[in-house]
Amino acid sequence: MDNKKMVDDITSMDEDFAKWYTDIVKKAELVGYTSVKGCMVIRPYGYAVWENMQRILDSMFKNTGHENVCMPMFIPESLLNKEKDHVEGFAPEVAWVTHGGSEKLEERLCVRPTSETLFCEHYSQIIHSYRDLPKLYNQWVSVVRWEKTTRPFLRSREFLWQEGHTIHETAQQAIEETERMLGIYAQFCEEALAMPVIKGKKTESDKFAGAVSTYAIEALMHDGKALQAGTSHYFGDGFARAFDITFSDRQNKKAYPHQTSWGVSTRLIGGIIMTHGDDNGLALPPAVAPIQAVIIPIAVHKGNVLEKARQLEQQLNACVRVKIDDSDNTPGWKFAQYEMKGVPVRIELGPRDIENNQCVIVTRHNRQKTVVSLDDVVNAVQQKLKEVHDGLYAKALENRNRRTYDCKTTDEMIQVMAQKGDGFIRAMWCGSEECEAAVKEKTGAGSRCIPFEQEQISDKCVCCSKPAKTMVIWGKAY
Amino acid sequence: MDNKKMVDDITSMDEDFAKWYTDIVKKAELVGYTSVKGCMVIRPYGYAVWENMQRILDSMFKNTGHENVCMPMFIPESLLNKEKDHVEGFAPEVAWVTHGGSEKLEERLCVRPTSETLFCEHYSQIIHSYRDLPKLYNQWVSVVRWEKTTRPFLRSREFLWQEGHTIHETAQQAIEETERMLGIYAQFCEEALAMPVIKGKKTESDKFAGAVSTYAIEALMHDGKALQAGTSHYFGDGFARAFDITFSDRQNKKAYPHQTSWGVSTRLIGGIIMTHGDDNGLALPPAVAPIQAVIIPIAVHKGNVLEKARQLEQQLNACVRVKIDDSDNTPGWKFAQYEMKGVPVRIELGPRDIENNQCVIVTRHNRQKTVVSLDDVVNAVQQKLKEVHDGLYAKALENRNRRTYDCKTTDEMIQVMAQKGDGFIRAMWCGSEECEAAVKEKTGAGSRCIPFEQEQISDKCVCCSKPAKTMVIWGKAY
Repeated sequence: MDNKKMVDDITSMDEDFAKWYTDIVKKAELVGYTSVKGCMVIRPYGYAVWENMQRILDSMFKNTGHENVCMPMFIPESLLNKEKDHVEGFAPEVAWVTHGGSEKLEERLCVRPTSETLFCEHYSQIIHSYRDLPKLYNQWVSVVRWEKTTRPFLRSREFLWQEGHTIHETAQQAIEETERMLGIYAQFCEEALAMPVIKGKKTESDKFAGAVSTYAIEALMHDGKALQAGTSHYFGDGFARAFDITFSDRQNKKAYPHQTSWGVSTRLIGGIIMTHGDDNGLALPPAVAPIQAVIIPIAVHKGNVLEKARQLEQQLNACVRVKIDDSDNTPGWKFAQYEMKGVPVRIELGPRDIENNQCVIVTRHNRQKTVVSLDDVVNAVQQKLKEVHDGLYAKALENRNRRTYDCKTTDEMIQVMAQKGDGFIRAMWCGSEECEAAVKEKTGAGSRCIPFEQEQISDKCVCCSKPAKTMVIWGKAY
Repeated sequence: MDNKKMVDDITSMDEDFAKWYTDIVKKAELVGYTSVKGCMVIRPYGYAVWENMQRILDSMFKNTGHENVCMPMFIPESLLNKEKDHVEGFAPEVAWVTHGGSEKLEERLCVRPTSETLFCEHYSQIIHSYRDLPKLYNQWVSVVRWEKTTRPFLRSREFLWQEGHTIHETAQQAIEETERMLGIYAQFCEEALAMPVIKGKKTESDKFAGAVSTYAIEALMHDGKALQAGTSHYFGDGFARAFDITFSDRQNKKAYPHQTSWGVSTRLIGGIIMTHGDDNGLALPPAVAPIQAVIIPIAVHKGNVLEKARQLEQQLNACVRVKIDDSDNTPGWKFAQYEMKGVPVRIELGPRDIENNQCVIVTRHNRQKTVVSLDDVVNAVQQKLKEVHDGLYAKALENRNRRTYDCKTTDEMIQVMAQKGDGFIRAMWCGSEECEAAVKEKTGAGSRCIPFEQEQISDKCVCCSKPAKTMVIWGKAY
């Protein structure tokens, strides 16, 4: 059984990764399609993953002094237009409301693609003195971007996210905040999602519209493509000037405050699928799995199996999200079903186990079986959940390491990708936008980020051979 | 001090209740205004109240078997049009998206005013057999209704709410669900918000667009006006027929399932303000107060006051949402400030208190002072929070009882309201829509609900004097 493919209707990853992905989101009941292109139903199992992510992130935000607020979903066109770079970046992809009931609106409203402009309008009303700073705000909402090509979680016209928006007395404080939140995202991805990420800075051409600098965490998916998993932006005082947000500083002089914003979205669910999933289905990191352990009673009709299984559920319930499946389906069907749904730990309990005061624990990511005494089952399950987390992380890191290549020329990049497939390519860069564009043009791999942890691959730009300034991570991206 | 009005800039309730309300939402920093009429910023203090409400309600929903999902915010016009009564009720007040980026959409989309149509589209895809039923879904989202007249929380163009949508095998099960959720709303209002409510059925003319029957909980505000605090709808199989949702029943025959929906919104925050507030500001029910107890150190510069206050905060922190205010402001200013913000319990701690191993606890709703030993302070604060809840509830119930009048004729109704002001009027009704409209026309009071708990005020209709069918509660509504 261990090596048999139990679920027949998921396309193999190696055969067609895109179809494998779509199969998973459907079969695992994460998403439903709707009659509006690019807008999805997030079904209970998918939404429960998001709720677990929200709960963990929200407490990380609150522990670092952030407060939740809620801005309106509509932005008047004149407000969106106030910051030049920002409107240029977003106007081409917003949805416009033009009518309320049967009346045409005097000014059309866009459905927020992001909320910098709304936060700025609010800050201009509530900030007067340095005593009013900082404001460390966040909101959990959905935003709309009218994308041409859409895929569930990865790129949808409406998606759920959180957007942090903070405003500070000094540039230094805002920069520290930008870095702090990137650090929190990285910690969250690694500790809650078992997803290794690289922290870095985006190049000028890849910055958020209106930002002075954009930082990102980049993860490598199973197929070697990169996923931007979260971003954190430093705005300087550009938005403050555009929106006339001023405060009396400590010398009682008028000054402009400095701002940041940062966000992660339901895209991370796509990241989980493509980082940990396999041909048997989803594999969920225990911290966000809606069901952490499923109990499958074997030979339910015999003796006290069901009663014992329910006792076990009771016992585990205090510290683990546990479910018992006592339906009529066969154990084999159930094994495949919960593997497909990515449940980290399965507990099998049959008459012989009960005789021996034991149960069998099987971990999803490696299908390893362990026989455990019923006296020690709570500890054992918790230990196994930790093992699943560590195992998923190690597997993902191994994939990233295996698919990370150092290259000195664009020819080398082309060759490596042709021979070994997609991945992260570490190569030096002179800093010019021309070279950045040329690399993408020639190799298909764009600059993902300038990683914080730099190494000297060579001293020449991978493209023009002039002296290099920084190492860049290049790759094809979702 | 006890009877002195400390905060000068809140309009008195008796002078101008509407202005008093607006003053509170602004001064207590619940809401900010935006450049889009009827769309508000919910500020951290207001949003924290909503988060507490969400947490309690969400766990009540999950404990009764409901799962959260998330539907898109857009409804294609053709989908909205599928159920005749529903579209007639909502089309006049929806916001229409007509463009995505620079392109005109082929079909315009409305921003959801409510999501029955989206749930129906989804149910039609996922329900095949009686084994797929029931589905007990809920979502926490914002909705948009293009209202003419708007007021923060009470009537805004965008508001936050939850909408439950369930689908069942039989009419009986759906009706039970409708009643169950009304019961949960009533329990929540009474136990978490200290707000007494009356459970009842809406008249035919006042039903939700598309419903077979609508149930509501009705609360009486301080000024004698009624607030519909939550609704629960039974749809029969009307939506299922319109959206062609069918299933194979236990006899393997095609059948139509039965549906419900139910919702409460941020409007409840308006209800809290108008139920419990007074001329000193907000008074928050402890269960949803962002700060349940504030510690105000007196003579902070003396001895170990601050150290002791911080110890007290530590002690309370495990079971109470506590804050210490050690800012430079005077104790008097702080007292007024936290009264205005409605913090249920204030703890004063000065050098003399510390000498005597005691502190002073003051409850917001009645300004009663109690001297409490520091050895017993955790218990004492919890006890006081319970007293505040009970005190707020009793006050609100007393207001409702005092303002509830039994009338036998419309002349009597007019007279009572002229002499005693607005309130709930209990009067008999023959059941005809003509009489219902005539009562509203003559007295200004509409039918609020047909309460579950009936009494026989007389045997004749208050309007036409023909034999009465039911007692109705009449009143002016927000």
